[in-house]
Amino acid sequence: MKINDLFRSDLKVVNLGLASFKEALDSVGVPAVQVDWKPPVDVEPALLRAVRAHRARIEEANKKVTAKILAAQPVLVGLEKALDVIPGMKPNLILHSGPPITWDRMCGPMRGGIMCALMYEGRAKSPAEAAQLAASGAIEYAPCHEHHAVGPMAGIVSASMPVFLVKNEEHGNTAYCTLNEGLGKVLRYGAYGEDVIKRLKWMEEVLYPALKKAVAKLGRIDLKNLIAQALHMGDEVHNRNRAATSLLYRALAPAIVTTGRDPQTTADVLEFINKNDHFFLNLSMPASKAGLDAGRNVPGSSVAVVMARNGTDFGVQLAGTGDAWFTGPADVPDALYFPGYTKADANPDIGDSAITETNGLGGFAIAAAPAIVQFVGGTANDALNYTRQMYEITAAENNVYQIPSLNFRGTPTGIDVVKVVEKNILPFIDTGVAHKEAGVGQVGAGVLNAPLEPFKKAFEGFARTL
Amino acid sequence: MKINDLFRSDLKVVNLGLASFKEALDSVGVPAVQVDWKPPVDVEPALLRAVRAHRARIEEANKKVTAKILAAQPVLVGLEKALDVIPGMKPNLILHSGPPITWDRMCGPMRGGIMCALMYEGRAKSPAEAAQLAASGAIEYAPCHEHHAVGPMAGIVSASMPVFLVKNEEHGNTAYCTLNEGLGKVLRYGAYGEDVIKRLKWMEEVLYPALKKAVAKLGRIDLKNLIAQALHMGDEVHNRNRAATSLLYRALAPAIVTTGRDPQTTADVLEFINKNDHFFLNLSMPASKAGLDAGRNVPGSSVAVVMARNGTDFGVQLAGTGDAWFTGPADVPDALYFPGYTKADANPDIGDSAITETNGLGGFAIAAAPAIVQFVGGTANDALNYTRQMYEITAAENNVYQIPSLNFRGTPTGIDVVKVVEKNILPFIDTGVAHKEAGVGQVGAGVLNAPLEPFKKAFEGFARTL
Repeated sequence: MKINDLFRSDLKVVNLGLASFKEALDSVGVPAVQVDWKPPVDVEPALLRAVRAHRARIEEANKKVTAKILAAQPVLVGLEKALDVIPGMKPNLILHSGPPITWDRMCGPMRGGIMCALMYEGRAKSPAEAAQLAASGAIEYAPCHEHHAVGPMAGIVSASMPVFLVKNEEHGNTAYCTLNEGLGKVLRYGAYGEDVIKRLKWMEEVLYPALKKAVAKLGRIDLKNLIAQALHMGDEVHNRNRAATSLLYRALAPAIVTTGRDPQTTADVLEFINKNDHFFLNLSMPASKAGLDAGRNVPGSSVAVVMARNGTDFGVQLAGTGDAWFTGPADVPDALYFPGYTKADANPDIGDSAITETNGLGGFAIAAAPAIVQFVGGTANDALNYTRQMYEITAAENNVYQIPSLNFRGTPTGIDVVKVVEKNILPFIDTGVAHKEAGVGQVGAGVLNAPLEPFKKAFEGFARTL
Repeated sequence: MKINDLFRSDLKVVNLGLASFKEALDSVGVPAVQVDWKPPVDVEPALLRAVRAHRARIEEANKKVTAKILAAQPVLVGLEKALDVIPGMKPNLILHSGPPITWDRMCGPMRGGIMCALMYEGRAKSPAEAAQLAASGAIEYAPCHEHHAVGPMAGIVSASMPVFLVKNEEHGNTAYCTLNEGLGKVLRYGAYGEDVIKRLKWMEEVLYPALKKAVAKLGRIDLKNLIAQALHMGDEVHNRNRAATSLLYRALAPAIVTTGRDPQTTADVLEFINKNDHFFLNLSMPASKAGLDAGRNVPGSSVAVVMARNGTDFGVQLAGTGDAWFTGPADVPDALYFPGYTKADANPDIGDSAITETNGLGGFAIAAAPAIVQFVGGTANDALNYTRQMYEITAAENNVYQIPSLNFRGTPTGIDVVKVVEKNILPFIDTGVAHKEAGVGQVGAGVLNAPLEPFKKAFEGFARTL
């Protein structure tokens, strides 16, 4: 073909690599085909063949799972003490974030959080006594996720802690989460000072009864509607919850006022929420959990229903592999560190909050919240591209949760480990960063891609079920 | 040049017309030059020559004006009755939106609003009596803008009405605005039923004292900071104020609670704000007015300090032309009409709310609030393009107000009538739509470009000052 002929014919563009180039061509109407350039993840060839042989069956199962996830109707219906409502909860049990782990392998902030909980529960008088008790064998540990619960960062839930009850009204199941303490030196980041425990006691004795009465008066607060609005208002409801917290505040305040003990207490409760733009995180997490739990136990589905980190391991669970955990070492996030701290101080990625990404929110919806990317040095266009890439590894687009800057496209929902392996694209996650030592607290906030190993193992474990 | 040579050399693109094509090329790194295709507005050649001869002087004056506008620090400092604080206010004076107008030329909703105000003030017992009094000559009328005030839609301010006091702490001047009544059948849209007056009385007797005490307790609420946050949260603070209203609510609520008469009254006040996502509009307007007033009376400046409509005429004032109004007929907006209404029911564009666009917000910042464009059938990309176009006719970019989806670029601020005329691009405005008859109320919300005539006249009036 002569060069003259080439330019006389219509241009056909094949774009290798960065999808943003193709998007730009799309926007000016030049037809273009996007080709991923990454080689697939190196998995056992026989397992890859097995998965490819069952592609139709897997797709059908994945459709069933994502239909359930998208149909979920998470609603805040009340607050109770953990011991009274969380299935299997008992006084000597402490729940934690991520996959199962023993005390000896736990990271600093998780140990710190447990020590704080033992002092808060009155079972230890000092950090040393708490550490001794925690290691003694008298305390049992289990993942929140194995008790229909989720917890940010260390994810610690002990018997006396108040929890939100988020009911999935479509499927009837309930998810649980503690109340958000605020930022800085707090239990979930591994701090255990007197002020931390004092705040937790205030939350139990003042905040909890006030919110419980207000929610009882309102009956229910529709979290799905609230999250959908927040995505139109700059939140991705993981690392940015300002809009969702504001909308929740507006919904709750009149009921808090009319059921309140006295005006000063009411003002204290309102001010506690007002001072913490992340208050809603502890509702976006169980809202996501309540939906994803409805998608569990569908044979043949390669869709993830849990991504969670305990600060040592990153764990994945799939709809098609029952209660199995697939794990690998957790990485340290790229982050904006608070003054005086660096990446050397950071604990590896920790917390159940990646349940939001598993549900198509957080890092998957980061195009809705470009301010997050900006604070780690990125641009608004980077945020668009992170979200665009997540469409490559998901099985569905949300019909309610939308991203305004992608012309109100539904969020990428339902991580398909087959796509993760075949395209070698790893889930993008927003996160807070804890100091690696117990007792310090938060040192920053940032973003990272999930590690490869748990997804590779999940793919292989899934392939073996076929 | 042979075609082979053409394609061997680097491509140089000259784009005529729609700027979005060039933006797409920019995003993939293809150098391109944007050329506007519209012929300039047809103005007297001698005046155009005069302006071009003084270009350096005009630019210097415009820099001075926009520096003042950008440096403004609008802060809510209190609430009072109009009669007690608005300069020149008196019992038989009614302020209205837009440029000066006599009763006989007023549109339906403005007449309706005035009749409502006269009944609210106890000066008339029925609509008929109010209309008679309004036309009798016993009542004086003046634009809000000539009394340091602004009002949405009909913009009616009468003596007993409570107003917000927004102080520009940088320059010392204050702007005034009534409190937002909510949507539907309300005075500002020309409704005057008993329920409208009852609500206004409740606002005077319950809402006003509650807010006054709360603001007094807080001392000041920084509106500039609040607007900057709201632009990161999907508002443009003209037709979308959900985020700003939420943030204001969070700031006010604890103070409303602790200074409140009783819990039920407090809850009623909170619920009134909660039910009206536009509550903040009546603060974004005086915040804009307070900044723009500081830019008035700078000889040689072609920057607009007022765009305002009275429902009959659209009026413009410039920094360089003192108190002169340049007017022309107001157009009917393209809008999403409420069920049962069409464009045939709509009154021409009305209200002082275009002060937000004059300040680089509203339609100028619509890229931050694509949901508004979506409801009149546009896409998120249309919203980006509307804002991009406004950079063509403005003298500055805001250093605090940013648009996330344009990678946090500052909003286009300071409309330069010389650019409007030379580029033939008219300001883009968001707006509510009133029924053209008195007594009905709101029938929709939409967008439109400002009419040409007032800008042509403003250009000519400005050129004559040189």
